[in-house]
This record gives sequence, C-alpha cells and structure tokens, in this order.
Amino acid sequence: MRSTKKIKKIPKVDWEANYWEPFRTISRLFSPYWLACIPLTAIIVMVWHGAVAAQDVEITEINIDTVNEGVANLQGTLNAIWVLIAAILVIFMNAGFGMLETGFCRQKNAVNILSKNLIVFALATLAYWAIGYSLMFGGPDNPVIGGGGWFLSSKDPATYGLDPFPAGLPISVAFLFQAAFAGAAATIVSGAVAERIKFTDFIIFSLLLVGISYPITGHWVWGGGWLGNFKDFAGSTVVHSVGGWAALMGALILGPRMGKYVDGRSQAIPGHNMSIATLGCLILWIGWFGFNPGSQLAADAMVPYIAVTTNLAAAAGGVTATLVSWYKDGKPDLSMIINGILAGLVGITAGCDGVSYWGAVMIGAIAGVIVVYSVGFFDSVAQIDDPVGAISVHLVNGIWGTLAVGLFNMESGLFYGGGISQLISQIIGIVAIGLFTVIFSGAVWIGLKATLGIRVSPEEEINGLDIGEHGMEAYHGFVKEPDGFAGSQSGGISGVDLHTGSGV
Amino acid sequence: MRSTKKIKKIPKVDWEANYWEPFRTISRLFSPYWLACIPLTAIIVMVWHGAVAAQDVEITEINIDTVNEGVANLQGTLNAIWVLIAAILVIFMNAGFGMLETGFCRQKNAVNILSKNLIVFALATLAYWAIGYSLMFGGPDNPVIGGGGWFLSSKDPATYGLDPFPAGLPISVAFLFQAAFAGAAATIVSGAVAERIKFTDFIIFSLLLVGISYPITGHWVWGGGWLGNFKDFAGSTVVHSVGGWAALMGALILGPRMGKYVDGRSQAIPGHNMSIATLGCLILWIGWFGFNPGSQLAADAMVPYIAVTTNLAAAAGGVTATLVSWYKDGKPDLSMIINGILAGLVGITAGCDGVSYWGAVMIGAIAGVIVVYSVGFFDSVAQIDDPVGAISVHLVNGIWGTLAVGLFNMESGLFYGGGISQLISQIIGIVAIGLFTVIFSGAVWIGLKATLGIRVSPEEEINGLDIGEHGMEAYHGFVKEPDGFAGSQSGGISGVDLHTGSGV
Amino acid sequence: MRSTKKIKKIPKVDWEANYWEPFRTISRLFSPYWLACIPLTAIIVMVWHGAVAAQDVEITEINIDTVNEGVANLQGTLNAIWVLIAAILVIFMNAGFGMLETGFCRQKNAVNILSKNLIVFALATLAYWAIGYSLMFGGPDNPVIGGGGWFLSSKDPATYGLDPFPAGLPISVAFLFQAAFAGAAATIVSGAVAERIKFTDFIIFSLLLVGISYPITGHWVWGGGWLGNFKDFAGSTVVHSVGGWAALMGALILGPRMGKYVDGRSQAIPGHNMSIATLGCLILWIGWFGFNPGSQLAADAMVPYIAVTTNLAAAAGGVTATLVSWYKDGKPDLSMIINGILAGLVGITAGCDGVSYWGAVMIGAIAGVIVVYSVGFFDSVAQIDDPVGAISVHLVNGIWGTLAVGLFNMESGLFYGGGISQLISQIIGIVAIGLFTVIFSGAVWIGLKATLGIRVSPEEEINGLDIGEHGMEAYHGFVKEPDGFAGSQSGGISGVDLHTGSGV
Repeated sequence: MRSTKKIKKIPKVDWEANYWEPFRTISRLFSPYWLACIPLTAIIVMVWHGAVAAQDVEITEINIDTVNEGVANLQGTLNAIWVLIAAILVIFMNAGFGMLETGFCRQKNAVNILSKNLIVFALATLAYWAIGYSLMFGGPDNPVIGGGGWFLSSKDPATYGLDPFPAGLPISVAFLFQAAFAGAAATIVSGAVAERIKFTDFIIFSLLLVGISYPITGHWVWGGGWLGNFKDFAGSTVVHSVGGWAALMGALILGPRMGKYVDGRSQAIPGHNMSIATLGCLILWIGWFGFNPGSQLAADAMVPYIAVTTNLAAAAGGVTATLVSWYKDGKPDLSMIINGILAGLVGITAGCDGVSYWGAVMIGAIAGVIVVYSVGFFDSVAQIDDPVGAISVHLVNGIWGTLAVGLFNMESGLFYGGGISQLISQIIGIVAIGLFTVIFSGAVWIGLKATLGIRVSPEEEINGLDIGEHGMEAYHGFVKEPDGFAGSQSGGISGVDLHTGSGV
Repeated sequence: MRSTKKIKKIPKVDWEANYWEPFRTISRLFSPYWLACIPLTAIIVMVWHGAVAAQDVEITEINIDTVNEGVANLQGTLNAIWVLIAAILVIFMNAGFGMLETGFCRQKNAVNILSKNLIVFALATLAYWAIGYSLMFGGPDNPVIGGGGWFLSSKDPATYGLDPFPAGLPISVAFLFQAAFAGAAATIVSGAVAERIKFTDFIIFSLLLVGISYPITGHWVWGGGWLGNFKDFAGSTVVHSVGGWAALMGALILGPRMGKYVDGRSQAIPGHNMSIATLGCLILWIGWFGFNPGSQLAADAMVPYIAVTTNLAAAAGGVTATLVSWYKDGKPDLSMIINGILAGLVGITAGCDGVSYWGAVMIGAIAGVIVVYSVGFFDSVAQIDDPVGAISVHLVNGIWGTLAVGLFNMESGLFYGGGISQLISQIIGIVAIGLFTVIFSGAVWIGLKATLGIRVSPEEEINGLDIGEHGMEAYHGFVKEPDGFAGSQSGGISGVDLHTGSGV
Repeated sequence: MRSTKKIKKIPKVDWEANYWEPFRTISRLFSPYWLACIPLTAIIVMVWHGAVAAQDVEITEINIDTVNEGVANLQGTLNAIWVLIAAILVIFMNAGFGMLETGFCRQKNAVNILSKNLIVFALATLAYWAIGYSLMFGGPDNPVIGGGGWFLSSKDPATYGLDPFPAGLPISVAFLFQAAFAGAAATIVSGAVAERIKFTDFIIFSLLLVGISYPITGHWVWGGGWLGNFKDFAGSTVVHSVGGWAALMGALILGPRMGKYVDGRSQAIPGHNMSIATLGCLILWIGWFGFNPGSQLAADAMVPYIAVTTNLAAAAGGVTATLVSWYKDGKPDLSMIINGILAGLVGITAGCDGVSYWGAVMIGAIAGVIVVYSVGFFDSVAQIDDPVGAISVHLVNGIWGTLAVGLFNMESGLFYGGGISQLISQIIGIVAIGLFTVIFSGAVWIGLKATLGIRVSPEEEINGLDIGEHGMEAYHGFVKEPDGFAGSQSGGISGVDLHTGSGV
C-alpha cells in the first residue's frame, strides 16, 4: 500500500548527456561561416527538440493510457473477485437452508429434505445456465422477457443486453451470482412443502421455477424490464417473495401434514435437531453478506455500508422476535429467534442500499414482530401448514421489505419527504410479480397434482419419506421415539413413550 | 493482470506532422532577408516548443494526479473489501462458538446454549452500534474512555478520533469488524456459565460487557488510550482475556453445575455431540483467518504473513495438546485436540504480526501444553466448573499470548535482544485490563445475583434448561438416556442404563 | 471507482509565466549587435528548453514509474488477498471432509474420525512447513525433487525456485495455499481406512504422505519437474488421485471392516448422520471455489470462469449420479447425490481452466455416472471396503478428470482437434504419479503393519474406536442401537432391535 508513495529517483546521467549534446554540436559549428549555420542550428534545435518532445509525449501518452487502463482493469478485476466471493457466500446459503429446514422437521424425513436441498442447487445451476439467465438478462430491450445467449453462449456482455451489470464484470461471475440467487428462490419453496411432497414433483417444480418463472419476473426488475421505478436492491420481492408465493401455493395445494390439525386445532410438530437448525441460521446470516452487499455488483464504498444495514436489521429482527415471542408465549422460543433474524434479513434486502442505519434497525425490528404473528396466523388461523415458517419469513417479510423501501428510502421514501410515488411503485411491483408467480406456480402444482400426484402416500408419510423416497434413514444407530403425530406405525418400542421414561 | 504490460502504440502520424511543420515554416522563410528571420525563428521555436511542452505538462499532471488518486482509491477499496471479508469470517465464528459450546454440553441444555449464542451477536451488534464503538474509538483524545458519534452518527472518520484505522477505511467496515470482535468477547463468557445460568441474566450481562466494559478497556489499547506501549495486535488480551475474566467471574459466582463435584472430586460430564463440537472448532479456525489477518485493517503483504503465523500456532497447539493429553491420560482426547488448536490460536493472536514462523510454532506449542494442564487445574484443583474450558483457552492462553509478545516479538521481544521493557508493558496491560474487567464483571454478576438471581432452579437444572427456559427440546424424536449427573428425574427408562446395555 | 474519470484542472498561471519568459529575454537582446546574440539565443533556447524538458521528463518518468509500480503492487496485493481467501476456503474443506466421513460412518467411531480429520491439517501444516513445501517447490531446477528453504527459511521467492508462482505472490500465501492442498490429500485417505485403523498409524502415514510423497510427485507437475506436458490445473491427479491411491493401498492392506462381507456378499453399513454428511458435501462444494479458481494463483478474469466450469461440473455430476442411482436401485440415494457432486468436482479439477462450459458439463456428467458404478464395483466386485467411497470419488474420478483434459481441453484436447499427444501426456502423468504413490504408500502401510500393527483389535472394532482409541463417545446422552454388523457386544438392549420396533 505504501509503496505508491516512494519516489523513484531517475538517473541524472541520461538526462545530462542529452542536455549537453546539442550544446556541443552548436559549439563545433562555431566557424567564420557560422551565420550560415544559424538556420541549421535552428533546424537542429527543432529536430532535437522534436525528438525529445516526441519521446516525451510518447512516454507520457502511452503510459498514461496504459496506466489508466491498468487502473480500470484492476478495478474491474476487484469487482469480479468481490462478486465471486459474494456468489460463494450465497451458494453457501444452500447449506444454511438445508440445515435449517432439516433441523426444523422430523428425523424420519431428514434424508428427503437434505436430498431436496442438495439437488436443488445442482438443478438450478443447469436450468439457469440453459435458459434462465437468458430469459432474465438476455436479448434486446424487451420489457417483458429476455432471450438469446442460451447456455451462456454469448461471451460478450454488450451483445447480450447485460445492462444491469457494470461494464467489465465478466459474464461468468454475473451468471454465477445470479444462479445462486435463482437457487435460493427454489430452496425457499422446499421448506413449506416439506415432509409430504414427492421428490420427483419437487424436482420438476424447481426446474420450472428457476428456468422460467423466476427469470421472467426477475427480468421485469433487474433485466431492464417494465418495472423500472420499482426498487428492490437485492431481492426482497424478486427472490424472497417469489419463493414465498410459490411456497404458499405448494403448501395450499398439498394440504397440511397428517396429524397437524386435530379437531381444527393446530398441533406443534417439533423439529428434530435445533443444533443444525441454528447452524443453518448462522450460515444464512453469513451468506446474506454475499446476498446484499454482493448485489452492488462492484467493489466500492457502498459494499460495507450495505453489510452494516444488513447486519443491523438482522440483529434488530432477532431481538424483537425474541421479545415478542417471550411476551406472547411466556418463554423465548429458539425457532422464533431464528425466524426473527431471518425476517430481519429478508426485510432489509430490498432497501439495504438506500436506508439509514436507523432505518435498517426499524425495518428489521418490525420484521421481527411481523414474523412472530405471521407464523401464528398461518399456523392457527389460516391453517396453512408450513413446517419451517418459510411463508412468514420470505413472503410476508419480503413484501414488508419491499414496501419499506417506499417508506425508509433516503431519496424517495415517504418518511424522508419523497411522497407516495415510490410506495405506489413498490405496491405495483409486489402485486405484478406476486400475481404472475401465483398463477404460474399454482398452474404447475395443479398440473403436477393432476398427473403425477404431488403427495406421498399416507403410509409413506407415517413411516417417513426417508424410507419411502430414498430407502435409507438419516440417523442409523440411534433409537428414535415413535412419532406421535402420524400414527403409531413408526419406529420405537410400541406403546412405550421412551422419551418421558414412563411406560410398560 | 497482464494488460498493464501491453504497450499501446501511438499513431506516428500526429507526431510527424508536428515534427515537419516548423521545419517547413523555416524553409519558407529562407529568403535574402533571412537573417532578420533568425529571431523570428527563435520565437517560433519558443512558441511551438512552449505549446508542445504545455500540452505535455498538462497531460502529464492532470492524468498523473488522477491516476495516483485512482490507485489510492483502489487500494482503499481493496482494504475495505478485505476487512469486510475478514469481518464476515469473524462473524462466522459465532457459529463456531455456538457449535463448540453446544456439543461440549448436555443435550438437555442445547436449546438454551444455541439461543444464547445466537442472540448474543444480535445484542452485541446493537449495543456496540449504540455506544460501544463510540466508547472505544470515538471522541477527542481521551486516554481513558472515548465518546461521541453515538449510533455511528458520525460518518467522518476524521472528526471521530478514528486514529487506529488507516485513512480511507470506511467507518461502516471498521464498525462491523469491531462489532464482530465485541460479540466474540461476549460469546466466550457463554461457555463458562453454561448449563445453569438464567437466559435473562446472560442477556443483561452481555449487553453491559459489549456496551461498556469491553469498549473501555479496548479504548486503552486500540482507541488511542493510555496503554500505548502495550502490544496486542489482534486481541489476546483485548478480546480473549477480557472474555475470559468475565467468564471466570461468572463461573465463580454461579458455582459448579449440580453433580459436578461429588465428595470433593470432579466428575467428567461428557458433551452430547462431538461432531458439531469439532465442526465448531474448524469454523473457529477458519474464522481466525479473519480475526488475525483482518486486524491489519488493510490489504497488504502482512496479511498472508499473519495468516501463516496464525495457522502454524494453531497446528502446533493442536499437536502438543494431543501429545500431552495422550501422555497424561493414556489416550488422545478429542476435546483436548480441539482446545489445543483453540489455545494456539488465542496464544498467537497478540503477536501474530511480529513473530517469526518459528516463534509462532513455539507460542502455539506452549499454548497447547498450557491448556491441557490449565483445564485440569481449574477442573480438579481450583474446582471452578467451566463446561467448555473457556477460561483455560481464552483467559490463560490470552495472558500467555500477550506475554509471548514480550518474549518473541522480533523487534522488542526479550529473546530477540529487545530487553525486558516490552515484557513489562505487556504485564502492565494484562493487569490493568484484567483488574478493570474483574471488578466490572464481578459487580455486574453480583448485582444480578442480588436482584434477579442468576441461577436456574435445581428442578430446571435437572430437567434441562431447554424445557425450563425455552419450553422446547433440541432433539425431539430421539430417545435420550437419563442424566446420571443431576438426579434421576430426567428422561430415559428409569433404572436402566440403556447406553451400556446392562440393566433391568 | 468512478473517481478515475474526474479530470483535475491544472492552474494556467504557471504555464503562461514560463511561456512568455523566454520571449521577453529575446526581446531584451534585440540590439544592433543582435547577430552576435543569435548563438546565445540558440543556447538560451537550448538551456531553457532543456530545463523545461528535464522537469517534464522527470515528472513524467518519476510519476509514471511510481504509478506503474503502484498499479503493479496493487495487482500483486489483490493476487495475494484472493489466493489467501482461496486458501481459507480450501482449509474449510477440512470441515467438509470431516463431516462427510463422520456422517457416512457409524456413531461408535465418530470421535475417532473427527480426531483424525482435525489433527490431520495440523500435522500437514507442520510437515509441509518443515520439508514438504521445499521438496515440492524449492531448490535449483531439479526435475525429480526440490529442496532447500526448509521451514520456509527463504523469504525470497527468487532464490527459491518458485517458478510456478507469479512474481510478487508472497511466499506466505503460496505456502498456505499449498499446505491446504497437501492436507486435502491426506484427508482423502482417512475416509477409506475409517472404522478400523489405529490412530497412531494414521498420524504417521499422514506425516509421511504430506511431508515426502505428495511433494515429490507434486514437484514433477507444479514445481518445475519432468512432467512438463502433463496438464493438471488444480490437482485431479496431483491431489485427488494421489490421496486416492494411498487410500486404495490402505484399504487393501487393512482389509474390510468386520461384518462387511458375509458369505462373500457385501453388507450395506449405513452411516449414522446424513445431516452432517450433507453439510460436509456443501462445505466441500464451497471449498472447491477456493481449490480450483484459487489455483490460478492470481486475481484475473480466469478466476470466475473457472468458478463457473467448476460449478457446472458439480451440478452435472450430482444430477447424473441421482438419475443413475434412481435407475439402478429404484430410489435416489442421498449418498449417491453427494458422491456425484464430489465426483463432478474432482473430475473438473484438472481441466477447469481450459474447457468450455459444455465441456465442463460433459466431464461432470460422466463423473456422476462413473462414481455410481465405481462404488458398486469396489463394494461388491473388488470387495475393497471403502466406507465413504473415497476411492471412487478421488482416485477413479481423479483419473477421469485428468484424462478429460486430453479430450476436452480447448487448445490441445482430442475433441478440439488437438490430436492424441495431450492424452498421451496425461496417461504418462497418471501412471508415473500413480506408480510412485502406490509403491511409497504400500511400503509405508506394510512397514507400519509389520511394526506397530495398523488395525485395532476386534474387540475395539466391535465396541467402537471412540472408546478404544480415545476413551470417550461422540453422542453421550442418546440411546444407541446395537450394531448389527460387528457382533452383539455393543450398546443397546441385547436381543432387541430397537430400531424396527420388533423384538423381545
């Protein structure tokens, strides 16, 4: 860093040689006929001067251009490396989603959930490579849908309508970052349909969501599409509420898990591994430092600013959800601390670049309150069975975060004197993207239900999807309790509740 | 990268036009009255030369300044991006601490431990944002305590006494990095007070430690305070022994867990999940590559050097702890391998920037020996119950690492001819910071004990804090053994030790 | 970023003063004796011009050089920071390997597996620091073996034969990156010899592999050795098949686990924790973004390109392995999804820098097919017991990936008109490195068997290596089933198969 300040002394010798040489030349010419030499002298001066100046200009211009180009290239390289690192962090979120969802569900379905979360990023990569990226960012300036450059066949961002990316960001890193986002949208669905969906249907749905639906609505916002005034910096709507709407449709059409509602009352079905669920939350928290600051798509001073707004919102969401759950249920529920943090993160995603630190804390704090009541609402009032709270975290707080831009954005937000227009743009975007996603995913889920069937058999659901769908179990060698929620056919010594120690 | 070497050829045409132009001008002037033209020629030469030189100088200076500024800005951006990445790695350490502590304790307290570790970074973020960062780095040059710029309200590092940071490092990334450190100090406490502390008390204590105590002692060293000659590069004392002293006071005032000491003899209470504990250790190892190299607060050649000293010390600590535990107990204990690695990491933290590779190996190797005997000492001799060995890892090796600077620092260390003065400065710093932290945390713990009570009820401790504090269990669906350490009221089939297979 | 475009205006005053000054000097000289002044004028012109040009040249050259140096230094710093981050990701792979292997094995051996995976990177760091790095990259241009600069004692890359590294990459980061690779090779062995090897033998073998064998064969390819035409960008052969050959020899010489083959038929021995195994796979996936793109050893546009080929191959491998396992066994096996992803990653490692996106997908897709059949072959036909499939993933696909360079490399591959010569070079490299590693590791394993004995006692194998080798268990507090594969002495209620719920 400090080496730029070292002044390298140039050798004086070269210069002095040049300096005296024309002087000596002139001296030698000092003869009686010297007058005739004057124009010669002048010419010599000219030529010599010209030569020196030429060198001079040449050095200067060549190097300045080279150096300027070098600095610009280096900034471009730094942009690419940073966005690559951000992409890696977002890809790491697959581990976060996987551990969170697995931990929040029952052990008898763990293999199935792990398989879904593992294969979904592989599928998302291929589908987004084949067509998704092109539909989202490709083609001439079509406001509704992109196209062209399928399979990343265009290596030239310019011929590719790659407007949203700063010049010089290689298409490779742009693709990888966006593919990670597309995978996140699909993973969100997984949680809401867990413990009862067929593996095949989940794969087909994920391919269609990542390959077609997500890129089209994404194009409207980030690909130069018609939602130009809609502000969603890192995807509260584009990613999270899209995943959330698809999750809602899936959960609605699948119906609740067996044993979830008894006589119209919701039964709590505890997750089997809070350790990995918490690990998942912490991985997601880390991953969000790629998700939001990486969405700057460049390495500049905004990047750490966005990291701080993101972190403040996560913290505020975790704290308010803890307090509200403590107040509401008498004890601080770990799953609510987790969901509060995630709600804060989803909430800040749309506005992380344009709100103040206080604004970020407010957005996160409100998200933490919303998520507790939203989970209660879907669980007990709407009676839509969402094992991990994905709808409350990603859909409801995705909407909240998108609206919050219209309130807290320091340029155009209502609370900052920006009037109502930004808020209206936000509502238009939320509704448009929501409608498209609801219709698309509803049609796909219904189509799958009508053809393949989307739900496993009751026997499989009781015994667990691990045996039914994958022929293996997640925790071989451990003694499990019978699953009290879905009949008594599952493992454990029949009739004995080993956990409480009573029995026989 | 290589584009800086490409020499862009300038078009010769422009220069040649300039070159011949004055020559032709002179030719046209070649008349009988040519003598009169000589001064004119000279003037023309002058003017033309001046014009060229003017352009020349202009191009050079404008661009050079711009380019220099561009290079400096780019270095600043690279600094900020690197320190941000380091901050993310340090924040990831929350997952490491959480998994380590949870795995080392019993399953009946897992939810409580996970909750503590998850909420503590949220609390630390908010407390450090509100007042901690200002107390540590803010205000005019007060040697004892900082202030001003609360809630990160000052965006100008210059008006903010932000001396420790290189010019240009945005306050956002400086804050995030430091907030992650503050959170680490609080997390250290969690392990030593595990399995018996009330959740509320831990939250209150963490807020006070991160908001007030840690920033004040931190100001003395890193905020321009009175401990100017004290060298603690990345926080063996500032972070680790501060956390360790607070942990020691907590463990002392809380007393041991039920069943830990029977007839004055220490009972081993095994952790419930060595897999996640080992994962935690590996995450912490990774996180330390942010903790130590990130503390350079810039991207330069020191950063990878520090990464190597850090890694060598971790490796040496792991190896010596393995060997010593093997020698001492007959078998290599996994928890000692883990603690040896962590001890090496804590030990190198103060001196990682100024010791040789051999020095780093020595510091780590000694830390690995220390930790094994220290754990034994606190467990059996001092009989201070520290479920995860936090006091031995963070306090004892934090002190060792800080002293080691006075021995191994290549500039001022005793073994490198630097005399005793650095060592004395180190001792002064250790004692001063230790005294302040012991008094502050002792007062807070005693105050909490006198008001809220800091320990859960015996019934809750026997049944586990998960049910008592959070109303849920960590591993629903698995059959657990009765906990032999804390009465027979807990789960499992009474009277049968299922684990050994004997019984009935 | 945008500040490079700001043109700083220079003050005109300075230039104009310079401009008129010589003109006025000439005017004052305009006297009757003006002719005599002409040569003086010329001289003055010369001198003045020289002075101006001198300044000019000085400013230009000093600053240009400084700036050029500044840009080059900054590029060097960015290279170092990126490769450091890549090294951190590769080191994180230790967590991936550890969780994968632990999860795929039985709970009674978990502590032993965790201990192996934790200590192995500590050992690798020290052995590679002491001699491994020097054997691989040190010394004068010896085509067979390097040397010198032991213990990283040479800080000067130039005197160190450090040809493979770009000028300016600090030796610290070069070492750390390579040490992480060396550790990976050793970790690969761990999986194939799991559940029956003595801890001491594994430690000794790892030290010899990382300290001697791996660096020698590595020198042949990456250290300027005799395999100059052999292309292995990031180590399909240099790392993965070396680890794989050593694993094969270990598994062969150790023999299968007790109960693995009954009447000549292979018995499936399920892993105990699919959650952490899947987490391990996802961590490895993330880590590979350091492994492959980091091997560019610089920050440039190739880095994200390599990240994309790497990701496409992983995705394709995961998908084809899922489909093939689904087709072959009727259900999609989670362990095959995991191994398919890893196979794709190993397969692309050699060629990730030189294949097209389509080529990457093809290589990964084929790797995913190979791994399923290879696991079946080793398990049932060859009857070499490899608990985690390490031989199929790392050896077989390491070979496939290395051959694939000869087929898919866009410059020299057979499918791209490059003829057969690259393929022949690849085969020579595979055979040479394979032979050396087989002989070396075979000799070490046989030597260890003849002296210390490499296999634990049958009693220890039945009761688990955790108790036998480490005196502790991984999951205290959980009730475990009796292990049906290795006698009835292990835990659980004798005679009752708790898992299926039948019994008594």
